[in-house]
Amino acid sequence: MTLTGNLLIGATEYSPTRGTLLALDPSTDTTIEPAFALGGIEEVDRAARLADEAFDSYNATTLAVRAAFLERIADGLDAAAPELAQRASLETGLPAAQLEGEAARAATQFRQFAQVVRQGRFRQATIDPAQPERQPRARMDHRMQKIALGPIAVFGASNFPISYSVAGGDTASALAAGCPVVVKAHNAHPGASEIQARVIREAVAASGLHEGVFSMIRGEGTQVGEALVDHPLISGVAFTGSEGGGMALYRRAQSRPDPIPVFAEMTSVNPTFVLPDALAARGHVIGDGFAERMLVNVGQACLKPAILLAVDGPGFDALKAAMIARVDAMHARTMLTPGIFQAYRQNVERVRATGAAQIAEGASGEGRWDGRPALFEVSGAHMLEEPSLSEEVFGPSALLVRVADVEQLVALARQFRGQLSATLHADAADHPLAARLLPILERRTGRVVINAFAHPQEVSYASIHGGPFPATTDSRFTSVGMSAIERFLRPVCYQGFPDALLPEALRHDNPLGIWRLTDGEPARTQA
Amino acid sequence: MTLTGNLLIGATEYSPTRGTLLALDPSTDTTIEPAFALGGIEEVDRAARLADEAFDSYNATTLAVRAAFLERIADGLDAAAPELAQRASLETGLPAAQLEGEAARAATQFRQFAQVVRQGRFRQATIDPAQPERQPRARMDHRMQKIALGPIAVFGASNFPISYSVAGGDTASALAAGCPVVVKAHNAHPGASEIQARVIREAVAASGLHEGVFSMIRGEGTQVGEALVDHPLISGVAFTGSEGGGMALYRRAQSRPDPIPVFAEMTSVNPTFVLPDALAARGHVIGDGFAERMLVNVGQACLKPAILLAVDGPGFDALKAAMIARVDAMHARTMLTPGIFQAYRQNVERVRATGAAQIAEGASGEGRWDGRPALFEVSGAHMLEEPSLSEEVFGPSALLVRVADVEQLVALARQFRGQLSATLHADAADHPLAARLLPILERRTGRVVINAFAHPQEVSYASIHGGPFPATTDSRFTSVGMSAIERFLRPVCYQGFPDALLPEALRHDNPLGIWRLTDGEPARTQA
Repeated sequence: MTLTGNLLIGATEYSPTRGTLLALDPSTDTTIEPAFALGGIEEVDRAARLADEAFDSYNATTLAVRAAFLERIADGLDAAAPELAQRASLETGLPAAQLEGEAARAATQFRQFAQVVRQGRFRQATIDPAQPERQPRARMDHRMQKIALGPIAVFGASNFPISYSVAGGDTASALAAGCPVVVKAHNAHPGASEIQARVIREAVAASGLHEGVFSMIRGEGTQVGEALVDHPLISGVAFTGSEGGGMALYRRAQSRPDPIPVFAEMTSVNPTFVLPDALAARGHVIGDGFAERMLVNVGQACLKPAILLAVDGPGFDALKAAMIARVDAMHARTMLTPGIFQAYRQNVERVRATGAAQIAEGASGEGRWDGRPALFEVSGAHMLEEPSLSEEVFGPSALLVRVADVEQLVALARQFRGQLSATLHADAADHPLAARLLPILERRTGRVVINAFAHPQEVSYASIHGGPFPATTDSRFTSVGMSAIERFLRPVCYQGFPDALLPEALRHDNPLGIWRLTDGEPARTQA
Repeated sequence: MTLTGNLLIGATEYSPTRGTLLALDPSTDTTIEPAFALGGIEEVDRAARLADEAFDSYNATTLAVRAAFLERIADGLDAAAPELAQRASLETGLPAAQLEGEAARAATQFRQFAQVVRQGRFRQATIDPAQPERQPRARMDHRMQKIALGPIAVFGASNFPISYSVAGGDTASALAAGCPVVVKAHNAHPGASEIQARVIREAVAASGLHEGVFSMIRGEGTQVGEALVDHPLISGVAFTGSEGGGMALYRRAQSRPDPIPVFAEMTSVNPTFVLPDALAARGHVIGDGFAERMLVNVGQACLKPAILLAVDGPGFDALKAAMIARVDAMHARTMLTPGIFQAYRQNVERVRATGAAQIAEGASGEGRWDGRPALFEVSGAHMLEEPSLSEEVFGPSALLVRVADVEQLVALARQFRGQLSATLHADAADHPLAARLLPILERRTGRVVINAFAHPQEVSYASIHGGPFPATTDSRFTSVGMSAIERFLRPVCYQGFPDALLPEALRHDNPLGIWRLTDGEPARTQA
């Protein structure tokens, strides 16, 4: 695939109107060709208008047409995977083999959403048939289905340049919902972004859809992103990235004359609680597994387990020794961008400045932007006094908390703000304590894991990648998993409709054969 | 029931800390005893803390206990209905008979939510069983259910002093979700509010629940409401009222350090489109029916049909004559509050000032706060030039739009902002035009009605009382109907859990016998 560096707005390519940028290979600190076009508010306006024009026809696509479109994207991602992984590796410093896996998972995700579309349950078709004889007054026929929210702006993350980027879960779920998508490409991987965007726009064309179903724009600084969030024809925003970036977009969207929903997935330290019997039985295994996971993707992962809490006692020293051994043995590795590297160094200094003891450090690397693994230890009492230690350090660093007793562990659990996940390591004898911690963790997280590590994650019906603030801006939704589609749907009730005017999902003879709720009971029958 | 006028925070009654207020009987312009306590931020804090203390135990109630609690409230509302209707009538000027019906519907609503709780589908239990043999890596067991969002602040409306007030749909759906509720009582009907609050707190006590499950506070001005929305232990807000009031709370909640969801139902003109064949066949019937509905509740209803659009042609004059006849024949009636009366007069003047022709006017009344019915007519061209004519006039006023042709009707449909509902009157020959209007209306409304009037509304599984901004602040939800509960729920995923630690809804043998999604298929079996 030839990269032109152009902005891809609908079916048209646009040359730069605000200069260009070059991608950086962070492992060699050198720039990479070609130059990528930067746009401004005119390009945002063009993309948003096209998306709006595309809305009616795309929202009205049959389930079969929409599912086939998503599968074309999946096929395109598969075909482009080697090239995409290579380019993404150049731009991120992440291993190409890992990125081929990420491309494969992204393709799988589009196929899964095609399946969700075919099943038709996302419509949440609900039917309350007429009750002409009801007293004291008759009930009219009421039918409800969910339709697309409107054009969606997607802001991808830097750290997973495929599965949380242009062809990631936000785009897949918004397209599955029937929403046209305008992606603001992340400037840290413009080439990988272009490859993904070309795959999607080719699928748009091959499926005979309105060109406005997908556009990708790019800009320097915050102007283009802000213009996108401000645009009156944009109906919702999906964002993955830092708390600062996410909140800036969130607050901006809420300040519009007509506020729009923003789902921003932002920050999480994913605390791990090792309960006494599990600690005694397998402290070493847990410490080793934790440290392995914290170093995946050079610690640049939303699900990185960043804090391990264990009550001091049998197994603690083995756990700690295993963590130290793995961190000490790991070399520094290239971080995604110079900015992320610098922030990592500053955050490690911030942890150090609280008085936390550094108990392990990976070897320094040769690259300019190589992040050195770091492991700190604090007492539970210290942690209770320093809530800033619960803030994320994006990169290969973690914190071991030596907890005095069970009551202190419970107090520490209560101190955490919203999280994407929390993990318990618990044996049978730990279950009473696990049951005590569970309501505390349910209230603070989107996912609780027992005896495993939260990464990598499933894309399935039950998966949740969400959680209370500041993990996300709306704990009622998820950005990963089949129910991610719900962010981009809204209900419409049809009252007293003749069958001929009803949408297909709600017709009497259920021509789509989908699950529907009739008088409160699920069924696939006519109604 | 003896009204004390106290603030009802948990199980305790609190005397005024910020003075008192007296209710006004708007029909006689006289005040009514007793004096009602006003509180301040200390009372808000007390109620929010109690709600937070109640959260864990209330969220963990079994389906049976929670359903029985809701049914106790229903029984209490039934028992209190005559007294409640009488007091509400005194405080609002609305007929007691109508308010008895409203009390009965409020009780029914609690019973319906009890049924929703028993069905257990609100948990949206979803199970992706382990796949230990899956390649390239095994899948762990993932289970998801929805739990309560947290303590909810409810702001009721002035116009339906029961069904959209203390014991209205917001409280019923939040309690059904497992959320403790703090109601800020509306100062226009403090006595009706106290009666409802006493019913709910008696049910809390009789059900053996934590007292913090329900509190009612009251304050003057905006301080108490703002303190409630600001309180760090409040997790969500439900509001019904004006666009000004709703947006003030919305923007405040979004400015918190940790923004919280706000569902505000605010404003709608519920446009009615009369298509040519229906107009020719039954213009008189439609005009008469429309005018009847616009006058219900003295036009003080969120679903009041406020604008009727019809293409000039056969039947138009009959439609217009029927509307005029009914409006001219109607006497002025007491409006809810002096403030609402004054705003109504100002809004009628605003319509007049646009050059709209007043074609009918009800007789003036004897009461000081009696609102006179008013009917205006404008051309479609005039309406296109004066978008302010699409803004709500809260009260017994409506606008007839004489549309030049079908293209102008389509253009007018596109001009509307978000609405709770839109209505089409259409005969078979009108179906092609109806089909053309439908996508325009779906995108702008939460409900489309054919050949009926939107009021009164059903509380059922398919009912939607929501819509795009400014009808509500989040078009993805509804404040009426069984799915109103979804505003107050959030998903939690349980990964790798032993059966003993799983919540009941997710256990292998499905002890609750509820519908669950297993590997993407609905079933009531074990998994």
